[in-house]
Amino acid sequence: MPEFLELYPPEQALAQWMQALPPGSPSVEEINLSACAWRILAQPVIAPEPLPAFARATVDGYALRATDTHGASDGLPAYLRLVGEIPMGRAAGLRLANGEAAAIHTGGMLPEGTDAVVMLEHTQLVGADEIEIHRPAAVNENVLLPGEDVTIGQVVLPAGRQLGAAEVGGLAALGVASVGVYRKLRVAIISSGDEVVPVEVKPAPGQVRDVNSLALKTLIESHLAEGILYGIVGDSPNLLEERLRAALRDCDLAVITAGSSASARDHTAAVIDRVGTPGVLVHGVNVKPGKPTILAVCDGKAVVGLPGNPVSALVIARLFVLPALARLSGGAVTPPVPLCRARLTNNLPSQAGREDWTPVRLAQNAEGWSAEPIFYKSNLIFSLAKADGMVRTAPEATGLEAGTEVDVWALER
Amino acid sequence: MPEFLELYPPEQALAQWMQALPPGSPSVEEINLSACAWRILAQPVIAPEPLPAFARATVDGYALRATDTHGASDGLPAYLRLVGEIPMGRAAGLRLANGEAAAIHTGGMLPEGTDAVVMLEHTQLVGADEIEIHRPAAVNENVLLPGEDVTIGQVVLPAGRQLGAAEVGGLAALGVASVGVYRKLRVAIISSGDEVVPVEVKPAPGQVRDVNSLALKTLIESHLAEGILYGIVGDSPNLLEERLRAALRDCDLAVITAGSSASARDHTAAVIDRVGTPGVLVHGVNVKPGKPTILAVCDGKAVVGLPGNPVSALVIARLFVLPALARLSGGAVTPPVPLCRARLTNNLPSQAGREDWTPVRLAQNAEGWSAEPIFYKSNLIFSLAKADGMVRTAPEATGLEAGTEVDVWALER
Repeated sequence: MPEFLELYPPEQALAQWMQALPPGSPSVEEINLSACAWRILAQPVIAPEPLPAFARATVDGYALRATDTHGASDGLPAYLRLVGEIPMGRAAGLRLANGEAAAIHTGGMLPEGTDAVVMLEHTQLVGADEIEIHRPAAVNENVLLPGEDVTIGQVVLPAGRQLGAAEVGGLAALGVASVGVYRKLRVAIISSGDEVVPVEVKPAPGQVRDVNSLALKTLIESHLAEGILYGIVGDSPNLLEERLRAALRDCDLAVITAGSSASARDHTAAVIDRVGTPGVLVHGVNVKPGKPTILAVCDGKAVVGLPGNPVSALVIARLFVLPALARLSGGAVTPPVPLCRARLTNNLPSQAGREDWTPVRLAQNAEGWSAEPIFYKSNLIFSLAKADGMVRTAPEATGLEAGTEVDVWALER
Repeated sequence: MPEFLELYPPEQALAQWMQALPPGSPSVEEINLSACAWRILAQPVIAPEPLPAFARATVDGYALRATDTHGASDGLPAYLRLVGEIPMGRAAGLRLANGEAAAIHTGGMLPEGTDAVVMLEHTQLVGADEIEIHRPAAVNENVLLPGEDVTIGQVVLPAGRQLGAAEVGGLAALGVASVGVYRKLRVAIISSGDEVVPVEVKPAPGQVRDVNSLALKTLIESHLAEGILYGIVGDSPNLLEERLRAALRDCDLAVITAGSSASARDHTAAVIDRVGTPGVLVHGVNVKPGKPTILAVCDGKAVVGLPGNPVSALVIARLFVLPALARLSGGAVTPPVPLCRARLTNNLPSQAGREDWTPVRLAQNAEGWSAEPIFYKSNLIFSLAKADGMVRTAPEATGLEAGTEVDVWALER
């Protein structure tokens, strides 16, 4: 006879489990700047030098003293002696006196004695060594001052910051050749079930291929963690216990698929309880698909029992494993972002009290996006593989009407 | 004297350039299923077998003939003879006759002679070999029929589909061990400027480190393409031409940073015109930052001249290079999705006719997200590295008022 599951609302289940997870502080590794994209800084980066290191022109024009241009206009230009051109990539070399100017390019180093740059457009060459200035310049106009971007010793990026293109650029500007980042989280993936055979095996009658291992690895690796396959375990509590212990020795989180329904085959929860404390915290979540979900912590390591049906396994991994990875990664946790807003093409019935996730196909028309629900069974992986996203029906809703505007969520975000 | 740039509205510039780009059809490579995440299918995948391959139970319960349960209720159960239990992962083995039932688990193979499964919850064991059935079952109830997910020969995934977790799962279910995907696009990154030195070099006065190469590589690789560094070229048209020709021999697209402002140093456009036809299509876009952008096509290869200022280079790469990669990748082109909606904390002035992109910091409060503009100079990389996203001011707007709700865009999406 089935043990009846106490069904938790999904948000409460997640909160309760997250509370029991250790705070995120994986160990740190030093990574070369060219390979650190999307990693999370373990320590703040402190500027070893100012940026820019010298005063630079921000336009093409003439470096000069602002005082020499006071009152200049088209009708009454200021006349300055042109004493040279500032080379790019070298010290300015010159020292300018009153009444002198030097040609300068964007990014060039201001010569000594100057404090402003007048744009080429506001000047006129009137001889080999004389220019007219048609506008007055203010001190520091069109000039980037040393330290204007970054001063020496300044914290330029805080710990926990994820390194995107701009951050990598900033580190390159400072000559930071390598950074300390948290190592990638390691997620063990264990498939269970006597009927499951590896993908490369031709299933005999009664057997099915292991869909979940590679699908979960793909999902997990889209979130910067490493998915490590621990293979397929038959319906043996002892073998599963052995495999889970091995997985938790090397990994930060373990997911076990199948074996989580309340039937004679269900020994996953019992095995988890044997492997570490506090063990199973949640067994059964009021969500469709994915009711028989197990959320557990074993001696500081997170363990998730996923339903064996591939659609359920992926949806539950999206709802519980991805937030856990975000929390354990050491980075700032930001809520996921929907793919788009779309109008439902059909009514979406739902049971009050239960949260539903329905795969949808998106189509774009003049008014925006429409979302067509794919009515599915959680065993049919292609109902999800054909979808462009998923729509959530909140626990308090009894359904969503055709025409309702809804958020569409990607599986992987 | 500067050559005056004809400034294109950004959308028109992109459209004109995209029209001149060759349609996306990079060559194809065969990739193992375990390594194909996020790649784009070059050919449709056709199911080599049906899914499921045999009739399966979708619940734990008893396999039986639906006709044997007609009229069954709590008060008047049907009584059936229990003839065994279906093992997982093997052929059912049994053949059931009228009045017989067999215990079955979720995913188990229906034995011959049965056409429905009654859930455990609606049954009662009344002896070693007899069960009560308390509900009538319909034919095919709680049964997954062969081919219900996929029939043999069906196109399960179309060419152009990007392979996420569900698609990988679907291919695993079918035993598809490898797939033909478009090879990754190769993007050449060329830095130019006499003042630019490699990241690992300590700049002398007047020199700056190469910020753009690694920042652009990070941006490009976040879109599944390969960023290949072609190093730094001094301000020499001949060297730049040589480098660009080498880059276009091996790559699908080349980006050249700096050298694109309308000054004496500007030879990028002329070099591009020498390297292939039609050459430069757009020189100058009415966008801030990034006005001196060059969009070109050389003998079927895309070439972009980016401003040398790192903020401009990244914003322009986001606006032009990423859509080009999407188009050339062979995948379906979907518009990018904003990070979130947020309320501006400050007024954002803008010049009518010009599209502005302003870095913002996000903060979350009870009402949602707020976006605080970072007033910046495009030479200051940390104004972007400190930002969480960017806000667009449309060309027709003269600014955005504090409190306006705006889309916030990630650099990399």
